[in-house]
Amino acid sequence: MKAFELQNAVGLENLKLVERDVPKPGPNEVVLRMKAASLNYRDLANVTGGRYKLPYVPLSDGCGVVEEVGAGVTRVKKGDRVAPSFFQKWLSGPVDPVSQGTSLGGPIDGCLSEYMCLHEDGMSKVPDYLTDEEVATLPCAGLTAWRALVVEGDIKPGDIVVVQGTGGVSIFALQFAKAAGATVIATSSSDEKLDRVKKLGADHLINYKATPEWGTEVRKLTGGRGADHIVEVGGAGTFNQSLIAAKTGGHVSVIGILAGFNQDVPIALIMGSNLKIKGITVGSRLMAEQMCAGMAASRIRPVISDTLPFTDAVKALELMKNHGHFGKICLKIS
Amino acid sequence: MKAFELQNAVGLENLKLVERDVPKPGPNEVVLRMKAASLNYRDLANVTGGRYKLPYVPLSDGCGVVEEVGAGVTRVKKGDRVAPSFFQKWLSGPVDPVSQGTSLGGPIDGCLSEYMCLHEDGMSKVPDYLTDEEVATLPCAGLTAWRALVVEGDIKPGDIVVVQGTGGVSIFALQFAKAAGATVIATSSSDEKLDRVKKLGADHLINYKATPEWGTEVRKLTGGRGADHIVEVGGAGTFNQSLIAAKTGGHVSVIGILAGFNQDVPIALIMGSNLKIKGITVGSRLMAEQMCAGMAASRIRPVISDTLPFTDAVKALELMKNHGHFGKICLKIS
Amino acid sequence: MKAFELQNAVGLENLKLVERDVPKPGPNEVVLRMKAASLNYRDLANVTGGRYKLPYVPLSDGCGVVEEVGAGVTRVKKGDRVAPSFFQKWLSGPVDPVSQGTSLGGPIDGCLSEYMCLHEDGMSKVPDYLTDEEVATLPCAGLTAWRALVVEGDIKPGDIVVVQGTGGVSIFALQFAKAAGATVIATSSSDEKLDRVKKLGADHLINYKATPEWGTEVRKLTGGRGADHIVEVGGAGTFNQSLIAAKTGGHVSVIGILAGFNQDVPIALIMGSNLKIKGITVGSRLMAEQMCAGMAASRIRPVISDTLPFTDAVKALELMKNHGHFGKICLKIS
Amino acid sequence: MKAFELQNAVGLENLKLVERDVPKPGPNEVVLRMKAASLNYRDLANVTGGRYKLPYVPLSDGCGVVEEVGAGVTRVKKGDRVAPSFFQKWLSGPVDPVSQGTSLGGPIDGCLSEYMCLHEDGMSKVPDYLTDEEVATLPCAGLTAWRALVVEGDIKPGDIVVVQGTGGVSIFALQFAKAAGATVIATSSSDEKLDRVKKLGADHLINYKATPEWGTEVRKLTGGRGADHIVEVGGAGTFNQSLIAAKTGGHVSVIGILAGFNQDVPIALIMGSNLKIKGITVGSRLMAEQMCAGMAASRIRPVISDTLPFTDAVKALELMKNHGHFGKICLKIS
Repeated sequence: MKAFELQNAVGLENLKLVERDVPKPGPNEVVLRMKAASLNYRDLANVTGGRYKLPYVPLSDGCGVVEEVGAGVTRVKKGDRVAPSFFQKWLSGPVDPVSQGTSLGGPIDGCLSEYMCLHEDGMSKVPDYLTDEEVATLPCAGLTAWRALVVEGDIKPGDIVVVQGTGGVSIFALQFAKAAGATVIATSSSDEKLDRVKKLGADHLINYKATPEWGTEVRKLTGGRGADHIVEVGGAGTFNQSLIAAKTGGHVSVIGILAGFNQDVPIALIMGSNLKIKGITVGSRLMAEQMCAGMAASRIRPVISDTLPFTDAVKALELMKNHGHFGKICLKIS
Repeated sequence: MKAFELQNAVGLENLKLVERDVPKPGPNEVVLRMKAASLNYRDLANVTGGRYKLPYVPLSDGCGVVEEVGAGVTRVKKGDRVAPSFFQKWLSGPVDPVSQGTSLGGPIDGCLSEYMCLHEDGMSKVPDYLTDEEVATLPCAGLTAWRALVVEGDIKPGDIVVVQGTGGVSIFALQFAKAAGATVIATSSSDEKLDRVKKLGADHLINYKATPEWGTEVRKLTGGRGADHIVEVGGAGTFNQSLIAAKTGGHVSVIGILAGFNQDVPIALIMGSNLKIKGITVGSRLMAEQMCAGMAASRIRPVISDTLPFTDAVKALELMKNHGHFGKICLKIS
Repeated sequence: MKAFELQNAVGLENLKLVERDVPKPGPNEVVLRMKAASLNYRDLANVTGGRYKLPYVPLSDGCGVVEEVGAGVTRVKKGDRVAPSFFQKWLSGPVDPVSQGTSLGGPIDGCLSEYMCLHEDGMSKVPDYLTDEEVATLPCAGLTAWRALVVEGDIKPGDIVVVQGTGGVSIFALQFAKAAGATVIATSSSDEKLDRVKKLGADHLINYKATPEWGTEVRKLTGGRGADHIVEVGGAGTFNQSLIAAKTGGHVSVIGILAGFNQDVPIALIMGSNLKIKGITVGSRLMAEQMCAGMAASRIRPVISDTLPFTDAVKALELMKNHGHFGKICLKIS
Repeated sequence: MKAFELQNAVGLENLKLVERDVPKPGPNEVVLRMKAASLNYRDLANVTGGRYKLPYVPLSDGCGVVEEVGAGVTRVKKGDRVAPSFFQKWLSGPVDPVSQGTSLGGPIDGCLSEYMCLHEDGMSKVPDYLTDEEVATLPCAGLTAWRALVVEGDIKPGDIVVVQGTGGVSIFALQFAKAAGATVIATSSSDEKLDRVKKLGADHLINYKATPEWGTEVRKLTGGRGADHIVEVGGAGTFNQSLIAAKTGGHVSVIGILAGFNQDVPIALIMGSNLKIKGITVGSRLMAEQMCAGMAASRIRPVISDTLPFTDAVKALELMKNHGHFGKICLKIS
């Protein structure tokens, strides 16, 4: 079988297509024939600058079909379609440091491979109505948005949610917020992209190039009240506007650091507005299963920007680097 | 002005139309010109068998327009359309015994009156898109359903909700569950009514006359799993089926006792299934305001069965007694 | 090695001491040399009337030392002292039906054995300051009390807790409540036992033989307010007094059914008092680990009534049957 | 009667002792004869640099006895000893922007006065075992610590709490954490003060002058795990060490900004550690009442550094400015 390995050093040029043996499942293990994978910004960051031990197979997110099960497996059977869990050992309950070290696509071999062998606990069955590529978008990007709004945010009908830009997590957040009966304010630097999020259900649009003080604009749009939830993806570049945009007692999910790692932060504002700021890295298998149920109930379809063949993995990562996409970039594996 | 008083003794025959002076607001008080009222089963029970001190004006739920404000009023102004709060003193936070004694329509004079005088804290502004009659359905029935599912149940997309029958609370629960992205199983004794709840969005239907063991049927419909939330309105008549219908760790909101006060209950099942059973009597003003926001975001319209003129209040209560309605019975006051 | 098996049929007379091979650990498995075990009412009920498939080794609760680890084990090492988890597969997160089927002492072979072989995930390290017998009291009785008050009840300083009688769970509940800064009202049929719970920190005492309406007495002791938490162990015999004892919005943990399975229940009172009733069967491994941390911080010592030698297991179960104990009955295994 | 007013401009020199009429209570109002007051850092900041409209009476925290009640008052009666609520209109429920504008000591006249006239809703009865000065320390400092740990933090036995320095909030946090069964790590720049917090129950001590990387030291003391709760009082000066000290998923309460308003923050660490950061400004009346119950159950006594006569208010504020105190600075009024 074929797989991509990041070899010797980080850098796109070190991502090599290699031949490996098709794995055999040990006790409680499952071998998956991979159908599709999808890319996250984390994958690009890991391949180009991460610190995981080399070599490894990148990409956390994929969709596969059970090819063979080892002794004692009860959770799945041959032919089941599943998504591997981002954190192989985070099954349920609160975040813990042990399971945080079990992510696919570094340190554990990921989805950029024709076959994968995983413990049966490290995967979930997925809804029939989704395509393989759509399923492949869920484990990291979908689940991060779900955890931010539904699990940590206890989102309810009538809440006001701010989503930033048109990356994978932000579009999922928009879709989940609408499915939960919320009102969505979307920001982007492009009017054309704002048109597209409007079609996905966004209620209010802000072009943050035209309106750099978009936090203040959120206040205006909400009659001075501010938003209930901010899905904060930019890190240093957007954090302070998010603090302004949030209502008294509002909830800011820190799920990304696209625009920088460190930021001069007005701590007095965090205190004065009684904000709840929560750092979020993906979620548990139980959350993933509840997300799938929630998506199926409203027949939510992930937004896919581009689908490339498996062997074009490097090209796909370059595409992501150029920020030209709207939604998720996928690879078709089989 | 005119008002109905329950005089001398309980019984529909003691509900008398009387002449009273239009009230004048004291400091922090507001006089409302009432536009509409709606009936709850509680009102019928109170008028025909309650223990509140007589005389009093029945009906907890209404819609009015601010006619005059007293000194110091800041929350509303002349011309604002509002709904009085069911519990005049339950503004926010958890239930407490003091505020539980401040319900309208007994012990405090209620909405069956052309004018009401209330503390400014005892009312909330309401969304423009609703008619006066629709607003009048919210304070008790709407809010009870909201609290059961959204506040106590933390409902999320993909949850499975059971609603019983087609009374006011059950239909609101159906609508709120759908707005929150949930799947709804509805029960009724009438196929015709089941057709109507299907049109309102119910996903699965059970005729409990044809299928008295409807708890078991819920289990079947959910692949053995059971429902996340049961909005239990029947009391003794339905409680044990609700316990069966609920999933392991499921949530049963006890919001009504239509079918009886006491019941032989399998306590071992409560323990074994790790159920969460919560008694619910309406909710706070904050919950009411959040419900209005949630309804407005999805433009939910209350289902009204009948609207009668103010002077037909007794007739309206008799209509409720005969259980012929689907949704809420309203009175047009002005 | 020696173990007790329940053979052929339920009944104390069918509990037989047998010879088995010392187990060898497979991958990710751990063999424990058992040091002690403790009895729960559930064990007695299972041995004398349960429905688990025979034969099996009874008793869920014990303490052992790691004797040998299989390939890949990382959570423990030879020589570690551990307690097996009551539910072998409930590691973290909310209750779920799959893990509810993985209890020790039926259906899975339990602690009445000189050695046990378990998956490494099915055990937790325990605090050094506790004796082996004390550790053996924790997995079911201790954890049930912890989950009732700390996990489900979010107990806080100043809360008022009612504990019933002097069985294992009730005494743990008393100790955990005091460690959490709460006030405790204890009931018993014996003034002598009430003296002993007073020494353990109970603030108020009610002899329920002298005062059968003890729910009303709790109301009096709390100035009419009622208790925040009732740890309900009696089932049918005590449930309705618990409903009376609870404050408006109070929390009743249903953790036992000592006095009967079914009960005629005033559902109107559940609703009117806005009670939260939660069925509880033990807890997860994470809860167990947090309980151990909580106990260690206050150096809480379990109360042991009797310690018998391993071979006196039947005698120990008979002792439990006669209800003469105060605290836990233990067996010394090695 | 006498009161201090901040007149004309901020600055200690503008705090003037003036003569005012003893107030008369209007409907639902209560006049208090003030017995004691206490100082918070906020008071010093407001008097020396705040923006509230002048003139006003400073100091949020006090203790008074009901001297006279207006028409309709039911919550208190003549002779009751009470503490005014920090936020006069935050009775219960989540933080909201309206009640955040109703703090005593600016914008509303505060406790530096021989008499106060307040709405009956703006005060709570207090436990008998506390002195007047002790009661006066509760409304802001005590309640902030309570909300941080008990309300927002859901503290439980065995949790690990970090408190910073020996100001009023930090010492309350230490006492409440111990009452709740937690383990406390205390920091200070003075070994002598560390000795004193040890006597109050602190389990571990860090001199942050000797160990400026105290966040790393907290990690060491907890076996690499980190603390469950950090009560962050320093703002810019301590925030980043707090982020390091917190465990994965840990809780950082931002309750003060003693050391600076803005800070360069590693947002990637907030995300990576899945931290929960919550801004906190005092709490509701319900929280205050629960705090009093929690204190009474463990007979917790506030730590008072200095008690000065009422007329020495300026001197007391200067004392606070010099940071020489350990615990609270109080004024005896009558």
